[in-house]
Amino acid sequence: MPADFEVSPDISDGINVGLMGLGVVGAGVAAHILSNGSSLLGLTGRTVNLKKVLVRDRFRVRDVELPEGVLTTNAEDILSDPDIDIVVEVMGGTYPAEDYLKQALAAGKHIVTANKEVMAKSGSELMTLARDNNANLLFEASVGGGIPIVGCMMNELAANDIRSIRSIINGTTNYILTKMAQERTGFEQALVEAQGLGYAESDPTNDIEGIDAAYKLTILASLAYRRSFQPSDIYREGISKLEPQDFRYAEELGYAIKSLAIANLDEEAVQLRVYPALVPAEHMLAKVDGVYNAVEVEGSLCGQVLVHGAGAGREPTTSAVVGDIIEAACKIGNHSPALMPRNGPELKVKPIGELRSRYYVRLEVADHPGVLAQIAQLLGDGQISIAAVLQRDTHPETDSAEIVITTHPAREDSMQMALRRMENLSQVKKVSNTLRIEE
Amino acid sequence: MPADFEVSPDISDGINVGLMGLGVVGAGVAAHILSNGSSLLGLTGRTVNLKKVLVRDRFRVRDVELPEGVLTTNAEDILSDPDIDIVVEVMGGTYPAEDYLKQALAAGKHIVTANKEVMAKSGSELMTLARDNNANLLFEASVGGGIPIVGCMMNELAANDIRSIRSIINGTTNYILTKMAQERTGFEQALVEAQGLGYAESDPTNDIEGIDAAYKLTILASLAYRRSFQPSDIYREGISKLEPQDFRYAEELGYAIKSLAIANLDEEAVQLRVYPALVPAEHMLAKVDGVYNAVEVEGSLCGQVLVHGAGAGREPTTSAVVGDIIEAACKIGNHSPALMPRNGPELKVKPIGELRSRYYVRLEVADHPGVLAQIAQLLGDGQISIAAVLQRDTHPETDSAEIVITTHPAREDSMQMALRRMENLSQVKKVSNTLRIEE
Repeated sequence: MPADFEVSPDISDGINVGLMGLGVVGAGVAAHILSNGSSLLGLTGRTVNLKKVLVRDRFRVRDVELPEGVLTTNAEDILSDPDIDIVVEVMGGTYPAEDYLKQALAAGKHIVTANKEVMAKSGSELMTLARDNNANLLFEASVGGGIPIVGCMMNELAANDIRSIRSIINGTTNYILTKMAQERTGFEQALVEAQGLGYAESDPTNDIEGIDAAYKLTILASLAYRRSFQPSDIYREGISKLEPQDFRYAEELGYAIKSLAIANLDEEAVQLRVYPALVPAEHMLAKVDGVYNAVEVEGSLCGQVLVHGAGAGREPTTSAVVGDIIEAACKIGNHSPALMPRNGPELKVKPIGELRSRYYVRLEVADHPGVLAQIAQLLGDGQISIAAVLQRDTHPETDSAEIVITTHPAREDSMQMALRRMENLSQVKKVSNTLRIEE
Repeated sequence: MPADFEVSPDISDGINVGLMGLGVVGAGVAAHILSNGSSLLGLTGRTVNLKKVLVRDRFRVRDVELPEGVLTTNAEDILSDPDIDIVVEVMGGTYPAEDYLKQALAAGKHIVTANKEVMAKSGSELMTLARDNNANLLFEASVGGGIPIVGCMMNELAANDIRSIRSIINGTTNYILTKMAQERTGFEQALVEAQGLGYAESDPTNDIEGIDAAYKLTILASLAYRRSFQPSDIYREGISKLEPQDFRYAEELGYAIKSLAIANLDEEAVQLRVYPALVPAEHMLAKVDGVYNAVEVEGSLCGQVLVHGAGAGREPTTSAVVGDIIEAACKIGNHSPALMPRNGPELKVKPIGELRSRYYVRLEVADHPGVLAQIAQLLGDGQISIAAVLQRDTHPETDSAEIVITTHPAREDSMQMALRRMENLSQVKKVSNTLRIEE
């Protein structure tokens, strides 16, 4: 096995990196480049120099020490410097990051970015720009932190037609759901704990409403199906409606509740969605706990491959960014052209109403005879057949009872219609929650 | 995201593949190349032609239909044909595969191989030959079938110093152990079932004695530590000594029993071993069932990344082989040099006696007072402290009882010494099994 490898003698000039952003990830990347010179030389055959680092505030204290003259507040010091080969963008957000990326690509610079929002919204345009300028655009860190899923889909699994992706790609929601499942805490309390630990932001909307996961799913689906998708193509439901008893019922039925980001081919169309769903307890995805992420890819040849690891944080994201820098540096030496994913087939995005799924419904009903019969009748009218019924938690003082129903596969629009009709039944006090079941 | 990619106009000549071997995997690879021309063109920018296929018996019926004139029984038709760019070797075994690979590399041909035995025994030599001839040597399929672990370690995780690898990389043993755990069948019966399903060979030695896993671990460790290791560097124990009650005790103690292939750095040395071990039930590796494989890599940046999937079979292995063909084809166009893993630090292989581990010991003892005290005394003499004791299954008719002891971390040689002394106690009828516990 590999031993005694030497630096190739015919590639000796260095690679200059311009880093945009020096937050948690930026500091990790800068520290790694500064302290791993010989390792990077061994891997790429070239010295990798951190030439410039763009920050907003030159005087803020950082947890990485940079050499004199590296820090700048002027993006042009990177974008207009012909000696900078690779621009590493870890600023996040669309403005001004997207403009900087376009300018850098137009100048023929290679890009390594961790920016899921820009890649989700403008990835197609940036890819075209990269190709036209013979530049590489690498974005491993945009999905799943240290999990090598972007590269796997582009390289190792390239021979496969991808049938589906099922993933847990938001650590914040997975932490909250794990907390709710293990300790039966309410959503609000679990969120506050996640905020206290730094796992959730003070405005948690992007995470708990599935917006962050939708960005990442847009990127994964675009890689899988080699077509351009937009975040707006993705049907989204957040996790704030979940209550402790949902976790209790799910466990009793043999499931865990996980917020899944799913893409799958259904005939000539693709279905894209982010929502909390019931997952069989014995499935690997049900066992992904805390802030961990996992992506399960089902390919035409490889079958189901699951990759599990840390989805965020300074070190794991640095692993992805530096991996991309190494790849870009190797490609520069080898006159490699830009990435050329093949043209995928035309694919429509199916509306959520056409989804076929199993369902879990939790209802608060009047504790009277005949209620279940009425509900069953409504479901039957919609061609929806019941798989299981649980009735617990009768509350004589309010004359109410809780019923949980799971169904066999049914169409989403039929289910939604049945749910609306249920809500109109006088004996049904509330449809407390509806979740889909992923098998 | 990626849309509307075209074939790069400046690379238009085709790639010729010579396939050596047309067994299960070879037929899968041939069928894929023959029926996915436009997809391969899209991915590599070139047509990929199956020019020659080497078989031993030209007249055997195959489950793939080859064009006229492709089949040959003469290796020289591939090795001496200057038009063949990539040699895909899926024959297995060392002879004559290794000679063919050397001859092909010397002729500057790129290699894609699924041959774990050759890569484990002669990988270092082949890598050097590849580098000297500016050829690529790719071997994703040699470990873990469709699991993209080789590529991940070489590419996506390249920024990491690898601390440890813990893996389940032999589907046959994992099937047998899963069967024993779930149905409490004996080893022999589980083996016969595995043979009936085609998961185990009629001579199962390579699998059940850990030889196959040791080949794969040699390859993974060499990638991780960028040094040359040999299969003989790996300490091995097979699974045939396991009995149903080991699975019962393990479950009671909160563990699963899995045959693990482990490499880890311990100061300046690496420890390499394949043996059945107790794994905490909540660990992802404990949940890898049946013929599935999984590899957990712990890197300095990425933390623990686990990849799970089908470790063998025609389609998954084809996924890996064709992925490598695509990579090789892309590199040919780009004048890429051979792989150049950096020189890893000097590493000794630590003898198994220096391992520190927790242990599980199952003993058959005389059902008399004071036996446990004697055993505890022996362990204490060896500085080994007891973590838990279970005593079950008293058999008055034979005057014997079964005791299971788990220990806190101790040195392997101290433990082995204590076990030998235990065996000499008159009250100890038998040390039935000793397993290590992986936390």
